Amino acid sequence: MRRFPLSKVYQLLEPGPVVLLTTAHRGRANVMTLSWHMMAEFEPPLVACVVSNRNFSFAALRATRECVIAIPARKLARNVVDVGNVTGRNFDKFAAFHLTPVPGARVAPPLIAECFANLECRVHDARFVAGYNLFILEVLEAWIDPAQRRPKTIHHHGYGTFVVDGPTIRLKSKMR
Amino acid sequence: MRRFPLSKVYQLLEPGPVVLLTTAHRGRANVMTLSWHMMAEFEPPLVACVVSNRNFSFAALRATRECVIAIPARKLARNVVDVGNVTGRNFDKFAAFHLTPVPGARVAPPLIAECFANLECRVHDARFVAGYNLFILEVLEAWIDPAQRRPKTIHHHGYGTFVVDGPTIRLKSKMR
Repeated sequence: MRRFPLSKVYQLLEPGPVVLLTTAHRGRANVMTLSWHMMAEFEPPLVACVVSNRNFSFAALRATRECVIAIPARKLARNVVDVGNVTGRNFDKFAAFHLTPVPGARVAPPLIAECFANLECRVHDARFVAGYNLFILEVLEAWIDPAQRRPKTIHHHGYGTFVVDGPTIRLKSKMR
Repeated sequence: MRRFPLSKVYQLLEPGPVVLLTTAHRGRANVMTLSWHMMAEFEPPLVACVVSNRNFSFAALRATRECVIAIPARKLARNVVDVGNVTGRNFDKFAAFHLTPVPGARVAPPLIAECFANLECRVHDARFVAGYNLFILEVLEAWIDPAQRRPKTIHHHGYGTFVVDGPTIRLKSKMR
């Protein structure tokens, strides 16, 4: 994993890929699947996400205020679905679904070695959790796997249907 | 345009397409480009979005509490970039960029005829606008253009680079 500039983190999340979110609580790491996230500020990068309070990860995120957002490429689609289909309450999803936890630099939850990008996050604002399960995260450190060139991400359309990234187009634009 | 079930709106936004957001204020409609949005609840559909207070649309959205989220397919990519590159303060972007405003059923801002989906929205919660320019919208009515079959959406990676939807994959999943 190579450090990735925080100023470019929005380019990873803004396109709407399905991501994995890891937490660590009471000595045990867990991972869930997440599509309800968006950028909220460029620098420092703030990310908003909704983690349902029906998810086992919710309590860990609220209590520890730390997580890692790991971005999987298309080859991990089956693992991503498996992670989303089972609770980690009494189950080690990393071992079961062949995801390798790797220590981060700034937070306790692990990076995922197989993901092409990993974002170490701390909860920046939890005031919207009560009403909407909405966390504002700050990305403290970002990592990218230089061995995964032009990774294609997946986008969830419901019930296990995903659209894979297709061709890239470049249009002249003043928009960041 | 045909009515689209509110229970399926998440399937349109969760994959992270670039969208257009229309407003109407003081007798004049405007449109902006937006990628910072996410689903926040299935039913009634709640959508969170960040609209920078540097955008001309910000004041209209805050004052009128209404907008339409219009989802463009790939053929509108050039129009989407044009819309994002200029302010509507003294400029009619609909006419300039060949987007046809169409009256909605529930809100004053127009639908966009060329977009394959249009979501009429009302601001549900504005308490997070002060800190983060973050609006919680409720989708009141959703419309889809049945003539646009399997539209391919575009996903922004920064500076006018977009990834177009590629192949669809279906995996067995219990996840909604």
